[in-house]
Amino acid sequence: MDGMSDHQPTIFDKILAGEIPSYKVYEDEHVLAFLDIGPLSDGHTLVIPKERKAHLHQLSDEASAAIGRVLPRICRAVMRATGCTDYNVLQNNGAEAHQVVMHVHFHVIPKFGREGLGILWPAKKLADSTARELLDKMRKALDA
Amino acid sequence: MDGMSDHQPTIFDKILAGEIPSYKVYEDEHVLAFLDIGPLSDGHTLVIPKERKAHLHQLSDEASAAIGRVLPRICRAVMRATGCTDYNVLQNNGAEAHQVVMHVHFHVIPKFGREGLGILWPAKKLADSTARELLDKMRKALDA
Repeated sequence: MDGMSDHQPTIFDKILAGEIPSYKVYEDEHVLAFLDIGPLSDGHTLVIPKERKAHLHQLSDEASAAIGRVLPRICRAVMRATGCTDYNVLQNNGAEAHQVVMHVHFHVIPKFGREGLGILWPAKKLADSTARELLDKMRKALDA
Repeated sequence: MDGMSDHQPTIFDKILAGEIPSYKVYEDEHVLAFLDIGPLSDGHTLVIPKERKAHLHQLSDEASAAIGRVLPRICRAVMRATGCTDYNVLQNNGAEAHQVVMHVHFHVIPKFGREGLGILWPAKKLADSTARELLDKMRKALDA
C-alpha cells in the first residue's frame, strides 16, 4: 500500500510524466497548468496538483494550498492573454458533478458573452432547522 | 489610498464583522466559511477570504493559499454532513460569469441527481495555432 493505490491511472499522469505533450502554461514543485484541449472558450486552462488524487477532499493541505496560491497568477495570465474581464473557476468531483478525468483539476474559463461556462442556478431557500442540523454535523466533522 | 479603495462594500463585510448573522461553518485567521442562504442543494457552503477583494485575480498569494489549504477540509465536512459523494467547487468572477456579491467566494455545492449546480459544457476544439498564440501571451504575463 503506497497511499495511492485507490487512484486509477488517468491521462494526467502521462501529461505530468511528459509522456503526452501538453500546452504547458506554468509548473512548480506541486502544480502544473496547461491549456484544455477541449476548451469552453479561448484561454480555458487546467490547474492540477502533481499529487495523484481523484477528488479535492482527498488532497493534502500542502498540495491544495499550492494550487490556491497559484490560482490568482494563472487567472491574471488568462486575462492578459485573452482580454477577458469575467471568468469562472470550476472544480468538479464525481461523474454526477461533471468530472471526466479522475485527477483533481481546477478549470479557469474565460467568459465572453454566451461563450464559456454555462451555469444553471436553481436556488432554494435555506430553512433555519435545516441549517442548524447541517451546521451541527459539519462542525462535528471538522472537529473530528 | 489604503489599497482597498477599489473594493465596494458588500454584505460579506457585514458577515465578516458579525453585523449580520451567518451559519458559520469554519473560521481561521484568513478564511470564513458559512452556509449559503440561497443554496442549490443542502450543504451548499461559501468559503471566503477575510481579505476584501472582489475577484480571484486580485487576491494575495497568502489569502488564496489559505483558502486552498482549507477547501479539502470543508469538502469533507460537507460530505459527512450531507452524505453526498459528488460535488462542485465554483468561484465566479464578474457579473457575466454569474458573480453577484463582489467579494471573492468559493461555492462548495453537493450534487444529488439533478439537484445542485447545473452545468452546460459547449466544448470546442483547441487549434494548435490558437494554443501557441495563447501560450506565448500567458507565459509573458507570468514572467512579467
